[in-house]
Amino acid sequence: MRIVNNIAEAKEEIGFARAAGKRIGFVPTMGYLHDGHLSLVETSRRHSDYQALSIFVNKIQFNDTKDYEGYPREFERDFDLALRAGVDLVFIPSDDEIYRNQLTFVDVEHLTEHLCGATRPGHFRGVCTVVTKLFNIIRPDVSVFGQKDIQQALIIIKMAMDLNFPIKIIISRIIREEGGLAMSSRNKHLTPDMKTRARSIYRGLAAAERAIAEGERQAAAITAAVKKELDAGKPDKIDYISLVSYYTLQPVKQIEGTSVLAVAAFFGSTRLIDNMIIEKKEGVFSCVY
Amino acid sequence: MRIVNNIAEAKEEIGFARAAGKRIGFVPTMGYLHDGHLSLVETSRRHSDYQALSIFVNKIQFNDTKDYEGYPREFERDFDLALRAGVDLVFIPSDDEIYRNQLTFVDVEHLTEHLCGATRPGHFRGVCTVVTKLFNIIRPDVSVFGQKDIQQALIIIKMAMDLNFPIKIIISRIIREEGGLAMSSRNKHLTPDMKTRARSIYRGLAAAERAIAEGERQAAAITAAVKKELDAGKPDKIDYISLVSYYTLQPVKQIEGTSVLAVAAFFGSTRLIDNMIIEKKEGVFSCVY
Repeated sequence: MRIVNNIAEAKEEIGFARAAGKRIGFVPTMGYLHDGHLSLVETSRRHSDYQALSIFVNKIQFNDTKDYEGYPREFERDFDLALRAGVDLVFIPSDDEIYRNQLTFVDVEHLTEHLCGATRPGHFRGVCTVVTKLFNIIRPDVSVFGQKDIQQALIIIKMAMDLNFPIKIIISRIIREEGGLAMSSRNKHLTPDMKTRARSIYRGLAAAERAIAEGERQAAAITAAVKKELDAGKPDKIDYISLVSYYTLQPVKQIEGTSVLAVAAFFGSTRLIDNMIIEKKEGVFSCVY
Repeated sequence: MRIVNNIAEAKEEIGFARAAGKRIGFVPTMGYLHDGHLSLVETSRRHSDYQALSIFVNKIQFNDTKDYEGYPREFERDFDLALRAGVDLVFIPSDDEIYRNQLTFVDVEHLTEHLCGATRPGHFRGVCTVVTKLFNIIRPDVSVFGQKDIQQALIIIKMAMDLNFPIKIIISRIIREEGGLAMSSRNKHLTPDMKTRARSIYRGLAAAERAIAEGERQAAAITAAVKKELDAGKPDKIDYISLVSYYTLQPVKQIEGTSVLAVAAFFGSTRLIDNMIIEKKEGVFSCVY
């Protein structure tokens, strides 16, 4: 496994792989790797021959300096995990290597209005900008994003399509800790008590799944079922419990087509997100979370 | 010469050229080709082996529907000129091929504030978005833009750098008609009388060059020298006569480093632009226009 921190070297390494006829897979991360990230690499491997993984805590997608500064960083541990996951190239650039008087930004309209976009102005603009840059540096054939950040994943799919990136974007399933809490680098900030309480998010999604299985289609009833479970975990604040269209990410009053049920809640000062895709296939709804 | 109108075919053609080890040159145009465009192809040929030229009247960069609808289109003539210029591939997509519910936009801050950006809100966002798309479709090694649209060229250079496009962007000199009028597809809209009067733009730049040669460095005096000549041509409206930094495109009070003297004026309802780069090399200023 090669670890490089400048763009020229990353391009050179990938150039060798490409010249050898390999399909390039790419997993962008902000580091502090966990099993969720490693499963993205696994997914990527099923579609490509060479695994590039980037580690870059992207300042411009944070709207809270404290959140940025406190974002967990433990690179030696990351390298170790990446190596064990069979990553071929770790690209870990400095801030200066990526941003020098950056004046160009990429933005996706409409899809960024709701869910995390509503309370994190500029967040997805920061994400889309850095992903565009990384796509142009790595030039992957395939790139994998986690369902855990479903709004991000769907925005990147739309962005790649709108900007004609010749890259296949894949959404990979959520990996959960025991008890159901979705894996996240931010879980590090949770006390054991908070962690226990935060499992209520997962129980909320499970309750929604049961309600849907019993025929419930109304957004109000489904989100109420989530809230009941979530409240039992005493979150410090609920940002949203929202049912939106999978394609437009606009709120829906009832489930008609494929939809996303998404949750964001604070435990302590840590904001956690989770979601469930309610997929409509041949008239039947199935829940993926 | 191949003429294709869908993205998949364009990619295939260019894929063959790339597989043959050719460096790809790319000149994006809105058609109604003239000697200015052909000189971009010539410049491109000096840096690459395969010449791709796109013809696409990009709706989203027009802020005036009439201007868009009235933009001259004469594609058979364009194909003929492209063939004679040695173009290998003409990519001429339909609106639908390029834009299907486009929600993603690329924007460059600051550089878009002044000159044409001031009176054409959204124009450069439209330009940057379509150029990003075309760059991702064609994936050229080299792309050539005309100095005539200097603000556009400098914005594209910044955008390509900021978004890490692995593309060399070249600015190619202005080609002028007899009498000095800069070539433009829009010149088609000028009556013979307007054309004669519009030569005053060029005479204005020449006057500025003389003033600079005589030691003048103040923006006010230099733009006044331009205005005096321009006024003699009785423009129907002057949009701007502006001296800006080459690097920031912000107005400067006097020439210190490399600068751009730019003019936009209407003759009839046709808006014409022209400019001069005032290059500082080893303490000496030379004018390129």
